[in-house]
Amino acid sequence: MFETTPMKTIHNKFVLLAIVIASLTTSYAQDPLPSWNDGPAKKSITEFVAKVTKDGSSDFVPPEERIATFDNDGTLWCEQPLYFQLLFALDRVKALAPQHPEWKTKEPFAALLKGDLKAALGGGEHAMLEIIVATHAGMTTAEFEKIVADWIATAKHPKFKRPYTECVYQPMVELLAYLRANGFKTFIVSGGGIEFMRPWTEKVYGIPPEQVVGSSIKTKYEMRDGKPVLMRLSEMNFIDDKTGKPVGINSHIGRRPIAAFGNSDGDQQMLEWTQAGSGARLMMLVHHDDAVREFAYGAESKIGTFSDALMTEAKKDGWTVISMKDDWKTIFAFEKN
Amino acid sequence: MFETTPMKTIHNKFVLLAIVIASLTTSYAQDPLPSWNDGPAKKSITEFVAKVTKDGSSDFVPPEERIATFDNDGTLWCEQPLYFQLLFALDRVKALAPQHPEWKTKEPFAALLKGDLKAALGGGEHAMLEIIVATHAGMTTAEFEKIVADWIATAKHPKFKRPYTECVYQPMVELLAYLRANGFKTFIVSGGGIEFMRPWTEKVYGIPPEQVVGSSIKTKYEMRDGKPVLMRLSEMNFIDDKTGKPVGINSHIGRRPIAAFGNSDGDQQMLEWTQAGSGARLMMLVHHDDAVREFAYGAESKIGTFSDALMTEAKKDGWTVISMKDDWKTIFAFEKN
Repeated sequence: MFETTPMKTIHNKFVLLAIVIASLTTSYAQDPLPSWNDGPAKKSITEFVAKVTKDGSSDFVPPEERIATFDNDGTLWCEQPLYFQLLFALDRVKALAPQHPEWKTKEPFAALLKGDLKAALGGGEHAMLEIIVATHAGMTTAEFEKIVADWIATAKHPKFKRPYTECVYQPMVELLAYLRANGFKTFIVSGGGIEFMRPWTEKVYGIPPEQVVGSSIKTKYEMRDGKPVLMRLSEMNFIDDKTGKPVGINSHIGRRPIAAFGNSDGDQQMLEWTQAGSGARLMMLVHHDDAVREFAYGAESKIGTFSDALMTEAKKDGWTVISMKDDWKTIFAFEKN
Repeated sequence: MFETTPMKTIHNKFVLLAIVIASLTTSYAQDPLPSWNDGPAKKSITEFVAKVTKDGSSDFVPPEERIATFDNDGTLWCEQPLYFQLLFALDRVKALAPQHPEWKTKEPFAALLKGDLKAALGGGEHAMLEIIVATHAGMTTAEFEKIVADWIATAKHPKFKRPYTECVYQPMVELLAYLRANGFKTFIVSGGGIEFMRPWTEKVYGIPPEQVVGSSIKTKYEMRDGKPVLMRLSEMNFIDDKTGKPVGINSHIGRRPIAAFGNSDGDQQMLEWTQAGSGARLMMLVHHDDAVREFAYGAESKIGTFSDALMTEAKKDGWTVISMKDDWKTIFAFEKN
């Protein structure tokens, strides 16, 4: 008896250790979304994933049909005080100004260069298009890719003083990874420029260029110094917003998503299109209601408008509204630092 | 000594067995392309794949950049005596004729319905477009998908008397699988209609809808009986042929292919675009020179023109020309039956 007791103790210690490890592992496996508070939003995600991945269940969806689409601005990364692509365009106007002396007297550039953003954008859609064309066209696709890559590596957000690629929502990055771990293919479907996103989405979100859908300008194949290039033309090709989102999804993906995530009126039709398919569906909208950690805006905002009509439709159709304040334990990874 | 001999024998037998199994495995691994004759075409494929997948080699390409693009008509499946999509359109004209009494006197429909294909197509591009619009537009994307799926399940090739999905090239089906087994992502980049291909490419080629790039007509999101639909409009959106192929590749994939496969002048720019990237590249053209087993055509053919200029460029730029007669042991899987 005396001899076996120490052995038993050691053995029991190992059993205990094994139980501790197992419970840690289990608790990890049960919390793939650590930046989400326990609540209805998190629950709607985990319940949806559980049922569509459960073989034999009536809600089971084969992996190749597990398509999830995500808006970008305001859904995966911040969009205030201005869409980041617009901030990029403004930086480009400043950088290009020496080559364009005529901009000193030509609107919207003159106002922009004087720092009067309000006056510059007062020209509405026409002014915006002029800025986009001046900064996004007239170069090859390879040249534009480098311009974007250089900017994104150095520019910083005016409020957070961090690279824009750090102003991404940690809960959504976890959600993307969680869906992919469950056999989903994740796509971006954004009103933003497709070529503005592709240089960095793989690194930041784990979403490769071929799974990015966005707005685009026309390009033209031509030979330059005996080498083929794609020139970016001063003409819109496709606007991937509102009714354009289902069109873009159909054109690029060719399957209807079973889950879609947005944050504004621009995402309404993508969520409707997703819901209209048969079988289990998940539609979610991020609501920016955290003025302390991020920004609070909605129906009155020109950037990322979340209208009362959208809120009404969300409630009527059973879409889940994510409250940043209540549902997100952490918004940005840098908060933890 | 006597005691150990039987053990040695058994041991040696196991060693022998292990060698036999290993050599069988190796020989299988060394012939992933059984329908290809040993020759320069097969060699250029296997050597290319070996070098871009060899970790540490200067030609190594990480898996996410292993993009291979394939033309469809004449490259993955047959395109004679007419593009299969045109044969589909002709069948649709016949099926829709009762609802269009005006077609009895309206060209190109009148000639078509009398069986005079030559007169009908004599109207050139305009006549072709009229036929496409009449048969491909005016319904929802879901309705069109069903029309294509029904047709492809029942229609038969006029010469081979087989479903069109059996008139695919067995060596290319093996090549697609071989590339995917080596970490490649395979895409179709075809002048054919994107929505005409997607209903069957996954089953036939293992290529999912989101990896199909093709020509398209415009679609419009609208509500019908309270449900959202995408209506197919009578307006071209994009022609994915010639200079359109690099444009389509850039728009859909957002990366330059490292391997591209075609068979006609329509593929010239796709191969140029592929070759213009840095690092190891593979460009191949199928040459239809087997009148016995398939069809022999080239510079003089209106369908799948392989001009002398293309042949000259192929030789100058080191593109591999595949001779169906010499390089393909089997052309169609049904030959083996």
